[in-house]
Amino acid sequence: MVKNISVYNRSPHYYETDQMGVVHHSNYIRWFEEARLHFMEQAGFSYKKMEDLGVLIPVISVECQYKYAVKFGDEIRINVKIDSFNGVKMSMFYEVYHKNDNRLCVIGKTSHCFVNDSFKIINLKKSNIDIFNFFNNLLNIN
Amino acid sequence: MVKNISVYNRSPHYYETDQMGVVHHSNYIRWFEEARLHFMEQAGFSYKKMEDLGVLIPVISVECQYKYAVKFGDEIRINVKIDSFNGVKMSMFYEVYHKNDNRLCVIGKTSHCFVNDSFKIINLKKSNIDIFNFFNNLLNIN
Amino acid sequence: MVKNISVYNRSPHYYETDQMGVVHHSNYIRWFEEARLHFMEQAGFSYKKMEDLGVLIPVISVECQYKYAVKFGDEIRINVKIDSFNGVKMSMFYEVYHKNDNRLCVIGKTSHCFVNDSFKIINLKKSNIDIFNFFNNLLNIN
Amino acid sequence: MVKNISVYNRSPHYYETDQMGVVHHSNYIRWFEEARLHFMEQAGFSYKKMEDLGVLIPVISVECQYKYAVKFGDEIRINVKIDSFNGVKMSMFYEVYHKNDNRLCVIGKTSHCFVNDSFKIINLKKSNIDIFNFFNNLLNIN
Repeated sequence: MVKNISVYNRSPHYYETDQMGVVHHSNYIRWFEEARLHFMEQAGFSYKKMEDLGVLIPVISVECQYKYAVKFGDEIRINVKIDSFNGVKMSMFYEVYHKNDNRLCVIGKTSHCFVNDSFKIINLKKSNIDIFNFFNNLLNIN
Repeated sequence: MVKNISVYNRSPHYYETDQMGVVHHSNYIRWFEEARLHFMEQAGFSYKKMEDLGVLIPVISVECQYKYAVKFGDEIRINVKIDSFNGVKMSMFYEVYHKNDNRLCVIGKTSHCFVNDSFKIINLKKSNIDIFNFFNNLLNIN
Repeated sequence: MVKNISVYNRSPHYYETDQMGVVHHSNYIRWFEEARLHFMEQAGFSYKKMEDLGVLIPVISVECQYKYAVKFGDEIRINVKIDSFNGVKMSMFYEVYHKNDNRLCVIGKTSHCFVNDSFKIINLKKSNIDIFNFFNNLLNIN
Repeated sequence: MVKNISVYNRSPHYYETDQMGVVHHSNYIRWFEEARLHFMEQAGFSYKKMEDLGVLIPVISVECQYKYAVKFGDEIRINVKIDSFNGVKMSMFYEVYHKNDNRLCVIGKTSHCFVNDSFKIINLKKSNIDIFNFFNNLLNIN
């Protein structure tokens, strides 16, 4: 059943570590993107398909709090959910957990707008009702 | 003269673009690190030297707002300054500008703590007065 | 059954594309590492465990031929196998295929030596017979 | 004076290191790209300008030999030159040196073809004589 939450499993790659011996903090921003696109694909409308329809979803802000380091060899779980959506803007929440002890390592949030392939901001309610309904339904089904 | 502000010049690398035709949003987090470490080096105490002295400065939070895209071929200028510092925590501000028209593209903030090489949180005032004075002076000379 | 070949499945991440609209060529080198470490883990001796035992396996050369582009949205399969191993050096082969049509996209090869945690070159036959046997068995079982 | 050799200076970024404490081997492939595009810009015809004219230069093979590690804090110099060019294919050589002791760390080679913006292979002699002359002159002037 489709839900407004998705679980994305991941292990850090060796090349994602730095000489502190932990995953470099910039990589979580990339993992959020992975988790977000995985969520959309699982929910039935891939980002690839959206881009093919001329709808791009750029990131307009990112926040990230690092509470506990992730290391090479760890297994992690990223929970992602839609926090808000109105057809013009969308925000999503992320939580990165160590799988073995359920420790919360990183919390994140991204905000997005929607643009057409000329990078002009669009309102999905007017521009693409299918994509509007897709995100709107996800938001509301809990 | 040393000041609490540093200018870091940069051009995006081709591999930093994505298929939207702009610099991928995760790279600004890396550019902030570049600008931050460049600032410290220019001000006279490189991060390399700090690590050699057993002081690491992990990132504990990142915020980033994307206002205007940066593209391959653009020249940018990153202004970086210390926003707060008390020996236990530090925060820094970043502004990314297009050089040609002075347009503000990205605003960012990072927060940091200080740890020793066992990753134990330290108070620089007690652990390393030279590094404490370095950051404290930068903060106060404006 | 353990064999001297491993299949690693992957989809390109959005941030791995560049403004040509394809996966940036540098990322295949990272995918080879992913495939190599996945192979070792599947075969029963993870690279994490080797590093914990003080054995590091740096890359001493890389070759890569790009025959056909991989794009965001594609699903790929990487075949990896050990090409040679004598306890002092090892080389591995990689083939990246599009899953849908079995088209060969990229061919690669990496060569490695073995070092201890002081980065001194070692002969596994003398330094760690378990790791020697692990790779030697993989090479010989076909 | 324009010459068929270019020197590109660089310091490793912190995020380019891995938990071995050295620059991750994949990054040299990216540095080659930086050095190559810097070379073209210095010689008077930027890659940005070529793409704007509809000429892309994908990489069709990479070779890289790692002789000596580069670490965060090192300063390096990359020598790059055109090895061969005939309007259909081009190959370039790279040497990465430690600046302080002139030690040769990494040797590389990339091969390229030329395509139009539909990714169709072109012969520069027929498709764009200016770009043909640019590379051909570089090759021949020593």
